[in-house]
Amino acid sequence: MRILLTNDDGINAQGLYELYLRLVKSYDVSVCAPDAEKSAIGHAITLNTPLRIKKVLKNKKFYGYSVDGTPADCVKIAVRSILKGKPQLIISGINHGQNLGSDIMYSGTVSAATEGTILGIPSIAVSLATYKNHNFDFTADLVSSMVKKIKKKGLPSRTLLNVNVPSIKKNMIKGVMVTKQGKSLYQENFVKRDDPRGNSYYWLSGKVKWLTKPAGSDIKAIEDGYVSITPLKFDLTDYKAIDDLKEMDFKLP
Amino acid sequence: MRILLTNDDGINAQGLYELYLRLVKSYDVSVCAPDAEKSAIGHAITLNTPLRIKKVLKNKKFYGYSVDGTPADCVKIAVRSILKGKPQLIISGINHGQNLGSDIMYSGTVSAATEGTILGIPSIAVSLATYKNHNFDFTADLVSSMVKKIKKKGLPSRTLLNVNVPSIKKNMIKGVMVTKQGKSLYQENFVKRDDPRGNSYYWLSGKVKWLTKPAGSDIKAIEDGYVSITPLKFDLTDYKAIDDLKEMDFKLP
Repeated sequence: MRILLTNDDGINAQGLYELYLRLVKSYDVSVCAPDAEKSAIGHAITLNTPLRIKKVLKNKKFYGYSVDGTPADCVKIAVRSILKGKPQLIISGINHGQNLGSDIMYSGTVSAATEGTILGIPSIAVSLATYKNHNFDFTADLVSSMVKKIKKKGLPSRTLLNVNVPSIKKNMIKGVMVTKQGKSLYQENFVKRDDPRGNSYYWLSGKVKWLTKPAGSDIKAIEDGYVSITPLKFDLTDYKAIDDLKEMDFKLP
Repeated sequence: MRILLTNDDGINAQGLYELYLRLVKSYDVSVCAPDAEKSAIGHAITLNTPLRIKKVLKNKKFYGYSVDGTPADCVKIAVRSILKGKPQLIISGINHGQNLGSDIMYSGTVSAATEGTILGIPSIAVSLATYKNHNFDFTADLVSSMVKKIKKKGLPSRTLLNVNVPSIKKNMIKGVMVTKQGKSLYQENFVKRDDPRGNSYYWLSGKVKWLTKPAGSDIKAIEDGYVSITPLKFDLTDYKAIDDLKEMDFKLP
C-alpha cells in the first residue's frame, strides 16, 4: 500500500516523523510536507508564486520532500509531480494540537486531507489534542490499526476522516467514537504593540470557548476521554436553509 | 445600517470600489481589505506574524483600512479592533471571477463571509463570473437590492450566502436561482522551470472541469444565465457517512 504523509506543522515536526517510523515498517511511505509551520492556513493554495521542492534527509538517509507552500500545495504537487504512483491513502499528521469544532475551518491539517479527497484519494487527518508534552506512541498505534482496516474496507467515497486523540494515558482512553463537528468560538482580541520605529502592529490572541458540548460532538468525545473520528465532506451547502432562502424571494434589480 | 465590505482581490480592486460607491449613498459603509491580492487563500488566518493596518485614501478622501493579512484576518481585526460598532452585514466582493463548486474550498472571498458568520454577523460573498472585461454595474445593483431585503428580513442564522452573477448583458439574465454547491475538479499540472541559477521551480497550472452539472447546482445556474445564490454553512460533518463509519467499527489498538 502506497501512503503519502503530510502535515501543517512542517517537515521537521516530531508527530510526522513518529508516524513515518511506525508506518514505514509495513507500507510504501512517502513524505511531502511544508518546509515550515503552516498552522491555521486553511485550504490555501499557492497561485501567484512558484513552489520549490527540496529533498530532506534524516540521519543522513532520504526522508521526504519539503515544499515552500501550504499543506494543500504539498498534496497537489506530490500527487501531480513528485510521486510515481498515485497514493492509495493520504494521512495528514500527527498534528501537534487538536482540530475540533470551528478549528476545522482554519486547519491546515484537515485541508491537506480535504485536498486528497478532492483528488479522489482516501484521506485522513490525525491530531493529538495537546499543545505540549506530546507523546505520539498511542496515536501512531491507533493510525497503524486504522490503516489496516482502511486497506481492507476502504473509506466512504468523497469523505475524509478527522481523527482526534485525547492526550491522556493509554489505559484511560475509553474507546473510539464516531462524532459530528462541534461548535466553538475563539474569545479573541488583538494585542496592539509599537515597533522601535513607533509603528503599530497587532497580534491575534485569544482562547477557545466551547459554545455547546452536545453528546456525539468531537469536542465532547475528547473531553470524555474517547478517540473522536468525524466524517467530513466538502459540500458546504446548507440544505436546510434552501427553503428559507426561496421564501426570501430575491429578485433581479 | 452598518455594513463592512471586504474582498480577496485587495483593497485596490475595482469590484470592491464600485460596490462601495453604490452602497455608501444609503448606508454606513466601512472598508477593510487585504493590502494585496489574496486569492485561493482559503480560510487562512495569521498567527505567527503580527498584522499592520493602514488607512487608505481614494481621491484624497478616506476610503478604508488595508491589512497585510488574509480576508479572514481583515474581518476579524475590523470587527474586534477597528470598527466602533459591530457591523450588521458583511459583504465580501465583488470578486473578479466566479466562486462555484470546489472553488468554494479555496476561495478567500467566501472565507471572509464564513468568518463573518462565525462571528455571528450576517454575511454574503459576491462574485462576478468572469476573469476579464468586468462590468460591475448590474452586480452592484443586485447587491443593493439584496441588502434592502436582508435589512428587512435578516438571514437564516449561521448561514452565509454565496452569490455568483453571470457575466452577460443585463437583459439576458433570466432570474435568481437558489442553488446547491456543484462538483468541479481542476485539471491541474505543475509547470517546471529553471531559474537563472539552475534551480527548479514549479507553477500550478490548469483549468476547471465540471464533473457534473446537475439541475439546481451553482454551476448550472450560471451556465444557464441565472444569478446563483447558494446558502453555505461551516459544519463539514458528512452526516450520511456516520453510519458507514460506525459499521467500520474502528477500535483502540
